[in-house]
Amino acid sequence: MNIESYIRSTKDFPKPGVIFRDFTPLLANGEAFKALIDQLKERFSNKKIDVVVGIEARGFVLASALAYALGAGTVLVRKEGKLPHATHSQEYELEYGSSVLEISRDAFEKGQKILVVDDVLATGGTLGATLKLIKENFSVSIEEILFLIELDELKGRQRLPEIPIYSVFHY
Amino acid sequence: MNIESYIRSTKDFPKPGVIFRDFTPLLANGEAFKALIDQLKERFSNKKIDVVVGIEARGFVLASALAYALGAGTVLVRKEGKLPHATHSQEYELEYGSSVLEISRDAFEKGQKILVVDDVLATGGTLGATLKLIKENFSVSIEEILFLIELDELKGRQRLPEIPIYSVFHY
Repeated sequence: MNIESYIRSTKDFPKPGVIFRDFTPLLANGEAFKALIDQLKERFSNKKIDVVVGIEARGFVLASALAYALGAGTVLVRKEGKLPHATHSQEYELEYGSSVLEISRDAFEKGQKILVVDDVLATGGTLGATLKLIKENFSVSIEEILFLIELDELKGRQRLPEIPIYSVFHY
Repeated sequence: MNIESYIRSTKDFPKPGVIFRDFTPLLANGEAFKALIDQLKERFSNKKIDVVVGIEARGFVLASALAYALGAGTVLVRKEGKLPHATHSQEYELEYGSSVLEISRDAFEKGQKILVVDDVLATGGTLGATLKLIKENFSVSIEEILFLIELDELKGRQRLPEIPIYSVFHY
């Protein structure tokens, strides 16, 4: 089945001149969603991942289903003020201004193998902040980074460190 | 396995006097998360659900894993301005002020069987707006509503219409 055909390109969102790659039609189709997660399960099952980290909010959707498929847990990296327990936080730059990501202080156990997941790799700012948040605060092994979609021309991959990145679809 | 033991009660969050029932430790533990989703899969598999609807943002985590387990699709009900395509929207009252939920105009096909999922049933305001959003705009059948946690003393269940509600844990 051609799961890529369920990704819809929406022009001028969130602003004029941008083409937004929208995977909500893929999620909404049970067969396509199952085919995607099954494919990812096969791709990552030999890595013995303990925890799949999802980045707010679209990252949660992929991280959660894949975690279940792998028998792993899932940890949420959230915007500021959303987590109810003690957190570590990391500021990062946006196009205009800045934002803060947080993770629970007890998110991981020492030595766990982690897979970090988000929907789209653009400039890599959010991912960079997430990696810093994890690496500076926990003794875990980030095995790989997974994106559903990578926007090649924004070169986010070049700004990121040595951890392998796997993107399902490239635009 | 006692999956309820992975729900942590955090006092005075998000404000003094409130006890927040936090399921992030349950998510983070691969065994507990699998046990939860397997149990829900068994509970709902005879309903032949086509689409599991998740409400932003914690609802996405449960909806997505359960959708995959059931072979269903998942549709996101989001805060205003987050969905890239044409939407239907619904305003609802908060304790102070109001907020807006949105759903894609092409979220469902006619006649589909829907399961609506969120993490916590409190006063039922968000769920009420979600049900209105679906019922007023689509010809689908909402089979059941699922919460991980129901806060019984807030009586959200009494404010809601005739669709059956199943909550895994009660407080």
